[in-house]
Amino acid sequence: MSAPFAEAEFRARLARLQQGLQASGAGALLLSTDAELRYVAGFLTRFWESPTRPWFLLVPAMGAPVAVIPSIGRALMADTWIEDIRCWRAPDMADDGVSLLLATICELVPEGGTLALPEGLGTTLRMPFADLRRLEAGLAAEGRGLTGDGQLLERLRMIKSPAEVALIREACAIASRAFDRVPEIAAEGVPLARVFRDFQALCLAEGADWVPYLAGASAPGGYADVISPADDRPLARGDVLMLDTGLIRRGYFCDFDRNFSVGAPSAEVARAHETLIEAAQAAFAIARPGATAADLFHAMDRVCTGGAGGSAAGRLGHGLGLQLTEQPSLIPDDHTVLAPGMVLTLEPGIEVSPGRIMVHEENIVIGEACTEWLTKPAVGQMICL
Amino acid sequence: MSAPFAEAEFRARLARLQQGLQASGAGALLLSTDAELRYVAGFLTRFWESPTRPWFLLVPAMGAPVAVIPSIGRALMADTWIEDIRCWRAPDMADDGVSLLLATICELVPEGGTLALPEGLGTTLRMPFADLRRLEAGLAAEGRGLTGDGQLLERLRMIKSPAEVALIREACAIASRAFDRVPEIAAEGVPLARVFRDFQALCLAEGADWVPYLAGASAPGGYADVISPADDRPLARGDVLMLDTGLIRRGYFCDFDRNFSVGAPSAEVARAHETLIEAAQAAFAIARPGATAADLFHAMDRVCTGGAGGSAAGRLGHGLGLQLTEQPSLIPDDHTVLAPGMVLTLEPGIEVSPGRIMVHEENIVIGEACTEWLTKPAVGQMICL
Repeated sequence: MSAPFAEAEFRARLARLQQGLQASGAGALLLSTDAELRYVAGFLTRFWESPTRPWFLLVPAMGAPVAVIPSIGRALMADTWIEDIRCWRAPDMADDGVSLLLATICELVPEGGTLALPEGLGTTLRMPFADLRRLEAGLAAEGRGLTGDGQLLERLRMIKSPAEVALIREACAIASRAFDRVPEIAAEGVPLARVFRDFQALCLAEGADWVPYLAGASAPGGYADVISPADDRPLARGDVLMLDTGLIRRGYFCDFDRNFSVGAPSAEVARAHETLIEAAQAAFAIARPGATAADLFHAMDRVCTGGAGGSAAGRLGHGLGLQLTEQPSLIPDDHTVLAPGMVLTLEPGIEVSPGRIMVHEENIVIGEACTEWLTKPAVGQMICL
Repeated sequence: MSAPFAEAEFRARLARLQQGLQASGAGALLLSTDAELRYVAGFLTRFWESPTRPWFLLVPAMGAPVAVIPSIGRALMADTWIEDIRCWRAPDMADDGVSLLLATICELVPEGGTLALPEGLGTTLRMPFADLRRLEAGLAAEGRGLTGDGQLLERLRMIKSPAEVALIREACAIASRAFDRVPEIAAEGVPLARVFRDFQALCLAEGADWVPYLAGASAPGGYADVISPADDRPLARGDVLMLDTGLIRRGYFCDFDRNFSVGAPSAEVARAHETLIEAAQAAFAIARPGATAADLFHAMDRVCTGGAGGSAAGRLGHGLGLQLTEQPSLIPDDHTVLAPGMVLTLEPGIEVSPGRIMVHEENIVIGEACTEWLTKPAVGQMICL
């Protein structure tokens, strides 16, 4: 599959990364995850579902990135703009790429220099722990240090280019159309598991490449949590049905949900839904360059709880793009200043009754002049099934 | 969603893990990934798609497992058989669960004792690198060491219980039915991306809960690689269409592919396909308790290359179950002895012409008396579209 962007998009990303690396003094940045390799190389595959093989991309402070990957991925990587591709035949029980990686690092990072790893709450180093130990020992023996990237990569990824926003907008439009069609597939008596299956099929029919995320519930007067898979219980009158999806279009996510009432909603549920919509609108109204992630949290929290400080969900929204969730987090402690190109979810939650919650979610993009909905925003009155 | 097994299944897994921990002398095992938490706790969610929050489960050498998780997951974890659930409100920018995890470890592992981490080629520790450093420093300060689990978890997971085999069998049956219906959706002129979408919808219609993995290609006389997503190129006469899927049924995977010819296959393609089927049959014929993973590799490699030693793919099959790929690997260096309950893919590959390959894949289960196909095995003659 050809990259969804011109090479200039990737070169601009590389230039910003290298500017950051040079400012920090790190010799190179080591990337190892799906989203990281997609961001720099445009390498798009679902093969990450297999945990077996590690994949590495080294971004030197100057010069071209180097892929250090299993040979099964050479052809696909050669389709990207990356030219320096070094492979080993994985899985190798004696040395699964560690020596090749170490030798490449030593080529890119001078003796006495440091290798940076991405850091931040959404990062991880995708390799076996024992191999990490070997890498650390090898770097120490070769006189190279290990350091964090000061959240450089997370900061850069927060700002989406117009081409990225266009793809997220497309993903949101696909899911908006699928949500509009929920009354075709969901009604009293239909098992929730069947609604989940049919909703994923609707997402595909409307243009999703695949559907990595679907969670939700159908329960009387609200639900206990927002991360569950479906059970086989049939939808019943008085249920609130919630579907929360993250579908992929050309490597980019949407992430939002919709609530439906099976039959007419109770007064409490109707009021809760109206409050959630009001909360999202309150955050939208102040979401502009200069406001902070915490400001959006407080705008929603005031509407939902009167300012009690949130709930067990932990945050009332977040960034998204190459991943279902990215930085920033809409929490009191995140003072990230909003800037044009940031794509965010607004995700207020409310307790309808003890142990019964409702959560609503929209996606927006911060612009220079005005902020836009990427989703077709829900209205206060619930759709009844 | 209720666990797909009785609690006894999980208690038996715990007993085997604790037996191994006691034999090794480790005080507890730290788990952090989707498959690991599903194996011990039965905790099933697609929320792992969000990279933001770490999740931990501690298995002490004696006593009950302890979940150390974000509060957003408390309700779902409380639905499993795990009773000791400790939560923090994640994301927490100052301390994202590390203190709570450390305190819990110190409760379970006596001073001077060690905490084990899963090791092996398919393992990783899913937490930010900086938090791992904090954990290491905290453990050292508290007089606890860190060690590998000697691949204990990977070894145990290789042997599936009858209940697990039943679910994998169901996943394979669903995909077999979807593959039988490919002629309904694929024909000359249909863009590959549309075939991919419609095939995923077929998998859902036939009973998949979701479709985490689909890769493949359609190209003249074979394809360049086996891990690519779809492009928009229409299927053309002379193409080999390959679809490789890993779909989920109640938390368990299948993983196999099928090749189709658009129009009649060339003599080379037809012969290659027959050879691949012959190779899978050759491995099937010797796949019984006592044979090794390497034996299966060589049986297939002899048929495909005359014994040249394999290809860039690196292996000719692997375990599967809770994940798309698990141990063992069908490679010359993996001398794992096959045992009843092992579920494997047989995945021979062949080079049809320079740069053009074909790969075929089936799933089997090793039994006491006989080995069974879990897939509806393909025949030598290709299906023409």
